[in-house]
Amino acid sequence: MAGDDATIEYAGGGVRLFVDAPLVAGAAVPLDEGQAHYLIHVMRAKAGARVRLFNGRDGEWLAEIASVAKRGVILNCLAQTRMQAGEPDVWLCFAPVKKTPSDYLVQKATELGTSTLWPIFTARTIVSRINQERLRANVVEAAEQSGRLTLPEIHEATSLDRMLAAWPRERRIYFCDEGGDAKPLAEAVKAGPAAILTGPEGGFDPREREKLRASDFVTPVTLGPRILRADTAALAALAVFQSVRE
Amino acid sequence: MAGDDATIEYAGGGVRLFVDAPLVAGAAVPLDEGQAHYLIHVMRAKAGARVRLFNGRDGEWLAEIASVAKRGVILNCLAQTRMQAGEPDVWLCFAPVKKTPSDYLVQKATELGTSTLWPIFTARTIVSRINQERLRANVVEAAEQSGRLTLPEIHEATSLDRMLAAWPRERRIYFCDEGGDAKPLAEAVKAGPAAILTGPEGGFDPREREKLRASDFVTPVTLGPRILRADTAALAALAVFQSVRE
Repeated sequence: MAGDDATIEYAGGGVRLFVDAPLVAGAAVPLDEGQAHYLIHVMRAKAGARVRLFNGRDGEWLAEIASVAKRGVILNCLAQTRMQAGEPDVWLCFAPVKKTPSDYLVQKATELGTSTLWPIFTARTIVSRINQERLRANVVEAAEQSGRLTLPEIHEATSLDRMLAAWPRERRIYFCDEGGDAKPLAEAVKAGPAAILTGPEGGFDPREREKLRASDFVTPVTLGPRILRADTAALAALAVFQSVRE
Repeated sequence: MAGDDATIEYAGGGVRLFVDAPLVAGAAVPLDEGQAHYLIHVMRAKAGARVRLFNGRDGEWLAEIASVAKRGVILNCLAQTRMQAGEPDVWLCFAPVKKTPSDYLVQKATELGTSTLWPIFTARTIVSRINQERLRANVVEAAEQSGRLTLPEIHEATSLDRMLAAWPRERRIYFCDEGGDAKPLAEAVKAGPAAILTGPEGGFDPREREKLRASDFVTPVTLGPRILRADTAALAALAVFQSVRE
């Protein structure tokens, strides 16, 4: 299995970078300033050193450093090492929590293979602004380290009401509802497009719970008898979902 | 279900403290200095305010602040709110990772209901010392917030070899082996006492993997095709294990 081979290789280290440029044999791929700095000054790589690249479209490629100059670092694309493949189709709609737990949540959700990250403002959400740049930086770093071939899409943050009004109804929402009687997630998962919805530190408010439970594209689920913090709930739900789907 | 009621109550806040003292109706329970400070100066609670207590043996109790004095805070135990109950019997044996991910791992594993935390030094473990006090502080805080009625036991850190030599063979080790062909954890879980074993940032080395795979109380398992960081792997494994067992 390609995934297993990849696992062995990455476990031992090796730099893996997300780039925007097309990847084909012989392509010259420029690195952005941050990546160039990381490669040359942190990893101390020199011309000829090899790295792996992915861009979300062309699979994964082995590349070598062709030139290191003041104006930038250019890589030369050598050979494809993995074919492009998607992630399981599961979105994570999450009420953002405080800075550090949010960073952690976004990194871990990327590792766990979520296909879309959608920050949702709920009644009890304390955080009022999403730093999109920080979110993307966390996503890129986690994707590079986790061997993913894609970045999760980052959806613009919206209110829960707007999310529900615009929801693509063929996609089932597994609503992690700590407050009620609900089936365990592992038993509730059906085939088809899916999304996991998790609340803020204080949970969903009664009106939100009622509205969610009244929507026919929403399935309330429980993650067990324990009380999980908001970020733990999101990761536990993704891990369980993936274990059922794969 | 008791767990569900509890969930609703805690979701809205409310202080919950772990104490050592026996809990029976009418008992006077002294708080330690840190708890007293938290209650009086951070939460601004006054005499008569109510909190919940647990000690790992006597269930959960409603208590009220009986006196606030220079020499300490005394609570008066009013009524039992939950009967004592155990957690699912699953240990987490983990190679400690760097400080912040280790804190996070320990907190989340406590929330996810692990019964024992056992730090293991492996060939590629970078961390060389465990701060037991910090470990315990993380465990207590997570147990208080998660509604648990027990603290996970904290096992003294040992090397992997010593762990295997002293292992109670009736307890099955689910060895999260990223490098090989193995059954998904969700399919591999059997009844009986269990432990999850996760490695350090760089994974297990070949000699360790061989030794583990040769032990008849060890089942190698996979957490899916993605490459998870050490701390993510531990949490994903616990979440999946609990979802299968409960």
